[in-house]
Amino acid sequence: MLVSTETISLQTEGFCHLVDITAMTQERVQQSGMTQGIAAVFVPGSTGAVLTLEFEDGLVHDFQRLMEQLAPQKIPYEHDRRWGDGNGFSHIRSALMGASAVVPVVDGRLALGTWQQLLFADFDNRKRQRTVIVQLLGE
Amino acid sequence: MLVSTETISLQTEGFCHLVDITAMTQERVQQSGMTQGIAAVFVPGSTGAVLTLEFEDGLVHDFQRLMEQLAPQKIPYEHDRRWGDGNGFSHIRSALMGASAVVPVVDGRLALGTWQQLLFADFDNRKRQRTVIVQLLGE
Amino acid sequence: MLVSTETISLQTEGFCHLVDITAMTQERVQQSGMTQGIAAVFVPGSTGAVLTLEFEDGLVHDFQRLMEQLAPQKIPYEHDRRWGDGNGFSHIRSALMGASAVVPVVDGRLALGTWQQLLFADFDNRKRQRTVIVQLLGE
Repeated sequence: MLVSTETISLQTEGFCHLVDITAMTQERVQQSGMTQGIAAVFVPGSTGAVLTLEFEDGLVHDFQRLMEQLAPQKIPYEHDRRWGDGNGFSHIRSALMGASAVVPVVDGRLALGTWQQLLFADFDNRKRQRTVIVQLLGE
Repeated sequence: MLVSTETISLQTEGFCHLVDITAMTQERVQQSGMTQGIAAVFVPGSTGAVLTLEFEDGLVHDFQRLMEQLAPQKIPYEHDRRWGDGNGFSHIRSALMGASAVVPVVDGRLALGTWQQLLFADFDNRKRQRTVIVQLLGE
Repeated sequence: MLVSTETISLQTEGFCHLVDITAMTQERVQQSGMTQGIAAVFVPGSTGAVLTLEFEDGLVHDFQRLMEQLAPQKIPYEHDRRWGDGNGFSHIRSALMGASAVVPVVDGRLALGTWQQLLFADFDNRKRQRTVIVQLLGE
């Protein structure tokens, strides 16, 4: 059995910045030598998320609009009233979108669709240095 | 260790068509001989999703209403303006709902609740031939 | 290879009651002796969810408001019209939030961020006795 903990380091801009981590994740799979299994991609933090999306400028814009519609930046949040962080919207978007995604690995490749990319979303209200964990399980 | 890649083929109608894949997934688990582990169910595509729901007509209707409320079909999407696909709403619903679900397998059975079914959602704007991947890991 | 099925029993209040299950999940990881792998946390039921959130009163309030905004308790649901359960909103919130979360285990610890807790959300419309499944895979 192969269990391998890989990481991806990112410099992010916040405010619903979407970063395509498909190639970096695929690279980690290849380096590990795993041919069959899963990649459990996880954000160790409460203001980010992992998702899949066709990564093109139109959908990036549409997704950012969805986040602004569901959890607007400018409405009052109890989190901000208590802690003064100003990033209540970031936490709420993160909870809604989820910190983990699990992608099967088949014949050494992430089994993504042709137009499907694996993205890290940074919902925070400032630039961040981020680490995404790619936990590989298989053989 | 058992790692097995199973697939489920579906003919879908699009427009938030929900298909109950519980029995097909359970069948794949049994055929593999796995007794303890996980089933990572994944849609290799950017206009579908995997979710759990009590599969009855009332909730199917309620869920379709939720999707229409959160990402309406008829509003303008940047994706459609750039690519002319007309399925911007499909991509956005897919990103929101997620491409993967992980269900524990205990004593050879998917550990679902009594009223909980595993569903494939096709959000696209046309009929599709779909493949869902069921990645089994365990023993 | 280590595969271990652990459970967490909870007495919940319903109506978007959030319970921090981080310590209980970590305890299960330690008892299993697993040092590297994943914890697949799953709700076997169609009116609950597993999510990650910074668990503090402000965000609990903000998250409950989000759920009320996206799937209000008081609007009519087809589920309720047909079955009379009165918990259509609970099912819809559960479908949206998802029944599973996968957290990497690294050096015997859940790889959560400092301000990131693992929560069970009970969306039902009554008190419940709940069981959450923690499926551990690794070594």
